[in-house]
Amino acid sequence: MTRTAQEWHLAARPVGRPVTGDFRLVDGELPAPGEGEVLVRNTFLSLDPYMRALMGSDLPDMPVYRLGRAMTGGAVGEVAESRAAGLAPGDLVLSDLGWRTAAVAPGSAFTKLRRVGGVPDSAFLGVLGMPGLSAYAGLTDVAKLREGQTVFVSGAAGAVGSLAGQIAGLLGAKAVIGSAGSAEKVEYLVDELGFTSAFNYKDGEVRTLLRRAAPTGIEVYFDNVGGEHLEAAIHALNNGGRAALCGAVSGYNDQLSAPGPRNMIELIRKRLTLRGFEVADHAHLRPRFADEVGRWLAEGKIRFRETVGEGIGNAVDSFVGLLDGRNIGKMVVRV
Amino acid sequence: MTRTAQEWHLAARPVGRPVTGDFRLVDGELPAPGEGEVLVRNTFLSLDPYMRALMGSDLPDMPVYRLGRAMTGGAVGEVAESRAAGLAPGDLVLSDLGWRTAAVAPGSAFTKLRRVGGVPDSAFLGVLGMPGLSAYAGLTDVAKLREGQTVFVSGAAGAVGSLAGQIAGLLGAKAVIGSAGSAEKVEYLVDELGFTSAFNYKDGEVRTLLRRAAPTGIEVYFDNVGGEHLEAAIHALNNGGRAALCGAVSGYNDQLSAPGPRNMIELIRKRLTLRGFEVADHAHLRPRFADEVGRWLAEGKIRFRETVGEGIGNAVDSFVGLLDGRNIGKMVVRV
Repeated sequence: MTRTAQEWHLAARPVGRPVTGDFRLVDGELPAPGEGEVLVRNTFLSLDPYMRALMGSDLPDMPVYRLGRAMTGGAVGEVAESRAAGLAPGDLVLSDLGWRTAAVAPGSAFTKLRRVGGVPDSAFLGVLGMPGLSAYAGLTDVAKLREGQTVFVSGAAGAVGSLAGQIAGLLGAKAVIGSAGSAEKVEYLVDELGFTSAFNYKDGEVRTLLRRAAPTGIEVYFDNVGGEHLEAAIHALNNGGRAALCGAVSGYNDQLSAPGPRNMIELIRKRLTLRGFEVADHAHLRPRFADEVGRWLAEGKIRFRETVGEGIGNAVDSFVGLLDGRNIGKMVVRV
Repeated sequence: MTRTAQEWHLAARPVGRPVTGDFRLVDGELPAPGEGEVLVRNTFLSLDPYMRALMGSDLPDMPVYRLGRAMTGGAVGEVAESRAAGLAPGDLVLSDLGWRTAAVAPGSAFTKLRRVGGVPDSAFLGVLGMPGLSAYAGLTDVAKLREGQTVFVSGAAGAVGSLAGQIAGLLGAKAVIGSAGSAEKVEYLVDELGFTSAFNYKDGEVRTLLRRAAPTGIEVYFDNVGGEHLEAAIHALNNGGRAALCGAVSGYNDQLSAPGPRNMIELIRKRLTLRGFEVADHAHLRPRFADEVGRWLAEGKIRFRETVGEGIGNAVDSFVGLLDGRNIGKMVVRV
């Protein structure tokens, strides 16, 4: 029996915007699973902005993908062969062995999933997965959102942002403002996702657009973008306001990190808190998240869209599209 | 009986570094104190970096000194005439009616002080006053310093910084690193104040100097400077680190606010918290502060220096000197 797989390898560290030549799609053969190991065929791969940082970094201490090796990332798949206890052929599993069609690894590398009626398997990479928990943890643990407050979410049409905005409303925010990069996305935020208002950040200065959307300021900022958005949010935050820094997609392609907010002094004058976070530190929230967000999902109170790239061969193009903001909602690849 | 006073008025909003022509020393006559009022003759005036921001700002919402009026600021003085209950001639009082030789105001504008043996009256503008409480609150309430952690203090030879460094050590920090702007100040920090190490930020890149002083990184940053120091501290902070932002003297003279840290993305990767604060929000700490810091002072465990400008006429020159970093420790004017 031959076990073939295709894997995306990082061939060179991208300079600025990644190009096709930075990657290589490699055909290979997998070994038979050894004792305790499993062969999983991936069905959906997750594409996430943080992966750009792992491709190469100005910051010498930060981890990066190794050259000439398969990249990693979230993936949902089905067990094809198992020599591991608790995993059987046909089981749906989650792993970090994305960017490939199949993988052999110890059973401990996979988390068994229970399918949810009416929800596609790819949701375990989105609303029910890391992006959903990021949105939930950022609003609750990090930004300490309280009822009646005004929230601004940047990158609001993305996987995390679209959930952060909806969850903020469900947690009792008075108003939820979103920014996105096209008129179509702005319409999506307001008409489909129920944001109080939204703006296209390409229509002018973010500071002005945000001021117009939130004339009395904001209490919480959920940052997926960094750069000019962060500066504008610092300006709009009221005394005691909090920003949860989840991502900075605007800076991921910059060779030299972009200049930071010019108005850091407002942090002092308005007693603001900026706090960066990683979802891994908030795993303790997972049961509450699964309960609460699972219920909202079942009740139809949370809506989500996905942008699906078709075929492993499209993963790099889809990833560049993600960095360019061509996705609405979670970006995945159907293998 | 004539009651004369000299007051510094703001004549024009300074552009960049303040110059003499932005101010006017005005001779005037004070009214007799009315019912409930007091005439106080100031003995010491406080000069603080925050005053630069009040002289003029790029941020349209922020309060500023009014033109053609006496500026305000901390002052220690003695009651000369009183028609207010609880205040008698000769009483030592604290007020915000600085930048002048004398003032008539309601008794409620003054806080009666109890002299501390061996400590000059001007200490109520420094170690026992707002700068001392700022240092204490920033380390405890804001940065949540814990025993065994490494602390970096910028502007460490200044009024707040010199106390923050010493208090950090007394609170159990493993190591306290300070930065200052001259070799003399660096020597003062290490030899007199007991900092673990210190560097002159003019000797090179702050990032490099800090890395050398703290090769395994820092857990807490007490920021009095902003700008390049903040960027370097963000780089040096270990996972979960906290920065208490107390002041940003490096930016006070900038017409356009200086570019912020280029490495904001490290906030996310290392789950850092930056929190601005104002001492006024931490008044609840005052009793604990008075107990603990008062005791350390009495035990000789806290040392402090002052830079004293002589005479009301020198206040503006002294203030510009403060912005230029010519002071060691708290900058005051002896009226």
